Amino acid sequence: MGEGARSVTAKVLAMLEAFTPATPDLSLSELARRAGVSLPTAHRRAAELVAWGALERGADGRYRIGLRLWEVAALAPRGLGLRDVAMPFLEDLYEVTHENVQLAVREGLELVFVERIAGRHAVPVLTRVGGRFALHATGVGLVLLAHAPVEVQEQALAAPLHAYTPKTITDPDRLRELLAAVRRNGYAVSDGQVTLDALSVAAPIRGADAAVVAAVSLVVRADTAEPIALAPLVQAAARGISRMLAPRPGGW
Amino acid sequence: MGEGARSVTAKVLAMLEAFTPATPDLSLSELARRAGVSLPTAHRRAAELVAWGALERGADGRYRIGLRLWEVAALAPRGLGLRDVAMPFLEDLYEVTHENVQLAVREGLELVFVERIAGRHAVPVLTRVGGRFALHATGVGLVLLAHAPVEVQEQALAAPLHAYTPKTITDPDRLRELLAAVRRNGYAVSDGQVTLDALSVAAPIRGADAAVVAAVSLVVRADTAEPIALAPLVQAAARGISRMLAPRPGGW
Repeated sequence: MGEGARSVTAKVLAMLEAFTPATPDLSLSELARRAGVSLPTAHRRAAELVAWGALERGADGRYRIGLRLWEVAALAPRGLGLRDVAMPFLEDLYEVTHENVQLAVREGLELVFVERIAGRHAVPVLTRVGGRFALHATGVGLVLLAHAPVEVQEQALAAPLHAYTPKTITDPDRLRELLAAVRRNGYAVSDGQVTLDALSVAAPIRGADAAVVAAVSLVVRADTAEPIALAPLVQAAARGISRMLAPRPGGW
Repeated sequence: MGEGARSVTAKVLAMLEAFTPATPDLSLSELARRAGVSLPTAHRRAAELVAWGALERGADGRYRIGLRLWEVAALAPRGLGLRDVAMPFLEDLYEVTHENVQLAVREGLELVFVERIAGRHAVPVLTRVGGRFALHATGVGLVLLAHAPVEVQEQALAAPLHAYTPKTITDPDRLRELLAAVRRNGYAVSDGQVTLDALSVAAPIRGADAAVVAAVSLVVRADTAEPIALAPLVQAAARGISRMLAPRPGGW
């Protein structure tokens, strides 16, 4: 009997998830080891993936994720689809503030940054498009956590919460109060909770069924920030994006 | 004997390529038909792809490309990798012109738009991030074609060339002259060759080995455009991006 279909699907996906932000290019033997397959199997599967365009092989013989996979993945409604809808509003936020603008969605117990416009002279931020981050520290994370199902919240609060700075809130009870305030106020403020010099103001984006599907934020210098002034700006952008998402039939 | 590994890899990929810009969400039966597999096989594979996050299933029961695939695909050096390097330069181009800015790479006989900043009051353009376009009409396409291997050029010129407007150049000999001029001048001008009201000026981006790996363009209103004034601006941005790519070990 040959390999079961289930194991092969899983192994094809393992070939793809071998690539990470820390290891965006791999030799064949690294790829085989990370995917947990033999060298000949890795060689055959890699050749098939290269032929399709899911992987590309450089002049240096190393494998990288291919452009064709990126083209297909660009159809993800929570990836570039959301990004395309949101982009004009993000550009407007950037134009009027010249600060960092971020768009994120929740994936399990983490957030994924879908878009980021970095102000050239704005406070440095730790984010990367396609990158992940914990939910309990950033403005967008607090918004996404505040509107997550209760079981997700409890799982997130039960896990060890990393203190990025002395101002990061890691006490579950204090976080529960904060999340209730986020829901009440309609926005979240993260003040020095990721890096001491940055403050972010984030607001929820709602999909067709009014469920929160994403969050948008401005990240500014903590010492000169006026969260009260920034909140309406971010909330207005979030509402604009939500309005564009609302007519979608089916929703997501 | 079970299914051969080759056919399964191909069938897993067929599940992904069933999704297109025209059909970003599919029912199970649509997915099975497009992937060329039986309904039970499609059901099993879709469940595995959903479990991994390559697909997502909406409240409407329809399948869409999943965020996890987008995260992995974001590692494509010719996708978001190139985009991340180029973005500050694209933002600068946008800031000083408020016109449409585009970034594209060649994939076979077509180009793929990797990034696009759309001017709010700028001339409308036909592009979409992740979308494809012919090489012989747009500014970025002419740059990518001018610097493609000779066999790619001949294949592109031998194919039927669509006339998007009466100004689109579809005569292979005239195109050969134009491509030579693009290489000589260091930039391409497409004047009304995609839509009559738009003019684009594009310049080549070079990788570590000086090969052209991408192209950047400004797209402006044809009636008020001054290509001679725009070319240095676009070329400077292209050189800036090339300089950021040059230190890459290995190259791509």
